[in-house]
Amino acid sequence: MTSERQEGTAATAAEQPTPERFFNALNAHQQTEAMKTAVELDVFTAIAEGNTGPSAIAGRCKAAERGVRILCDFLTIHGFLTKENDKYGLAPDAATFLNRHSPAYLAGATEFLLTTRVRRGHELLTDAVRGGGTALGRGTLEPENPDWVKFARAMMPLMSHPAEVMATELRKDGEARKVLDIAAGHGMFGIAVARQNPSAHVYAADWRNVLEVAEENARAAGIAERHHLIPGDAFETEFGAGYDLVLITNFLHHFDIPTCAKFLRKVHAALAPSGRAAIVDLVPNPDRISPPTAAAFSLMMLATTPTGDAFTLAEYEQMARDAGFTRTEMTPAIVGLDRLIVAHY
Amino acid sequence: MTSERQEGTAATAAEQPTPERFFNALNAHQQTEAMKTAVELDVFTAIAEGNTGPSAIAGRCKAAERGVRILCDFLTIHGFLTKENDKYGLAPDAATFLNRHSPAYLAGATEFLLTTRVRRGHELLTDAVRGGGTALGRGTLEPENPDWVKFARAMMPLMSHPAEVMATELRKDGEARKVLDIAAGHGMFGIAVARQNPSAHVYAADWRNVLEVAEENARAAGIAERHHLIPGDAFETEFGAGYDLVLITNFLHHFDIPTCAKFLRKVHAALAPSGRAAIVDLVPNPDRISPPTAAAFSLMMLATTPTGDAFTLAEYEQMARDAGFTRTEMTPAIVGLDRLIVAHY
Repeated sequence: MTSERQEGTAATAAEQPTPERFFNALNAHQQTEAMKTAVELDVFTAIAEGNTGPSAIAGRCKAAERGVRILCDFLTIHGFLTKENDKYGLAPDAATFLNRHSPAYLAGATEFLLTTRVRRGHELLTDAVRGGGTALGRGTLEPENPDWVKFARAMMPLMSHPAEVMATELRKDGEARKVLDIAAGHGMFGIAVARQNPSAHVYAADWRNVLEVAEENARAAGIAERHHLIPGDAFETEFGAGYDLVLITNFLHHFDIPTCAKFLRKVHAALAPSGRAAIVDLVPNPDRISPPTAAAFSLMMLATTPTGDAFTLAEYEQMARDAGFTRTEMTPAIVGLDRLIVAHY
Repeated sequence: MTSERQEGTAATAAEQPTPERFFNALNAHQQTEAMKTAVELDVFTAIAEGNTGPSAIAGRCKAAERGVRILCDFLTIHGFLTKENDKYGLAPDAATFLNRHSPAYLAGATEFLLTTRVRRGHELLTDAVRGGGTALGRGTLEPENPDWVKFARAMMPLMSHPAEVMATELRKDGEARKVLDIAAGHGMFGIAVARQNPSAHVYAADWRNVLEVAEENARAAGIAERHHLIPGDAFETEFGAGYDLVLITNFLHHFDIPTCAKFLRKVHAALAPSGRAAIVDLVPNPDRISPPTAAAFSLMMLATTPTGDAFTLAEYEQMARDAGFTRTEMTPAIVGLDRLIVAHY
């Protein structure tokens, strides 16, 4: 994505203007539909199993050969497949993340990235730009929104490594004993901290329906007896006190700055002196156009939440200061697509 | 798009697999919606008129400043805008094609590229791959489909230059006197031939509703007295005979090879000996994955027509041979996104 833009900028400076970029943007929904179809028909798994020609893939996927050929060519053009002598193969990304037999299989992400609510929010983007927030009321922030269960289940395989990266970085500054895991979802961030801090008890806060996923994962990780649940609205529920670490992962971007500051005050009040709040989130640079994935995430929040945004480091610093934290720093850790910001009591 | 793929191939060979490409594909519909919204709110024109900050753009577009800021950042990430010191500018492509005050303004293309039928056909892509053709019955090939009127009007500014390129190339091999313009649409291809062949009479064939656009354009070009209409289904209507040039522009891709061959037989019968059929269309290489825009066009045909496709030169040669043509060649001319193939009687 970065290099597409860089290339584009270079190309438009050097060449005649072309409408191709505009047509590609209008047709970009084809990429969404093609990927959704490929996952639904399990095309990547079929190829991984050795069905490499259109006819064999069609047989395995119960589809028409002509349809499969056109779909696979399209996926090749977009870098997910390779093609040689009319045989398809998996590009490395697809082999890792889109083959059902891969431990890092991630294709369930289609389930939450393409929910009716997310699609509808974007279809109504003009209204969202006019109004400054989602055209769908509370959008994805509806209480007990079942999409978050899909999110928790789908993102779990992806989050295991970034969660370890975060936990390792946090462990450098001392052991944690009482940990609050806000919007725990799949629970993987809290579970990684529990793994690296053998005496830590983790309190996972999220909607009750979502916490079932975190509970399952804690049991599977063998830390169930140190994993506790705080179900309900994170703004309303009582967290308790004396935490030395509070994890706030991919949560604050759903709200505006004053709401985040208010929430961080609640977090501050729950911390022990010398405690830390660990904010894991997409953090665009001050220019808000780089890095592209973090910066582009603002549009997702515009389309699907009333006031959410991707915040810069300066904005996180301001929120934390307003909430009473003394010092905020961004660590060098790369946590998947996220960064790790630590605010000190 | 080419370089994105090339870059992707290089990157995946050199680097760790990343799910980012997969997420970008799932989220690609955001590009479609963002462009549609920007055109609907006339953001590019607003910036061209000197409204460069989010607040000024918001005022001009009657939208929320927050919504405009997020939308414009997204358009910057995707190369349509520039951004410096929180002021936006138009990238060259956008300045040429998306500013309403530009003579090459093309944003009306959203009207036909994003019709309900096209969007719906892609939403049902899984069914199309299963069945080997659009899930929408005859799809865009419904008789008198009003979307073709939108197409004709929207594409007109874009087609004027490519039409001249085609007419110039065809003129090299001799003057035309009686010209048949199949699926004339906006009529620009026939009109360009009429311009470069002062004694030529052009017979434009298309649905009656679409021919109104061609007629308007012929009048505007000052060649109305040499421009004649043949309304109706191109497979059913009587073309007459003795043509020395038949233009078949962006038409054959809607059908399968036998249907194209059958149609070319009808064209052959309408030609004078020594006449030529000029096929202007997207022509992928034999690998069917390059050049990317021509190759990817197959998916549009799969989603929106029963049997349409982007054909290779070898396939066009075969059709023409089956239809009785003696010789077929691809000219070097680049006609917009299309190539020009000439089949000789």
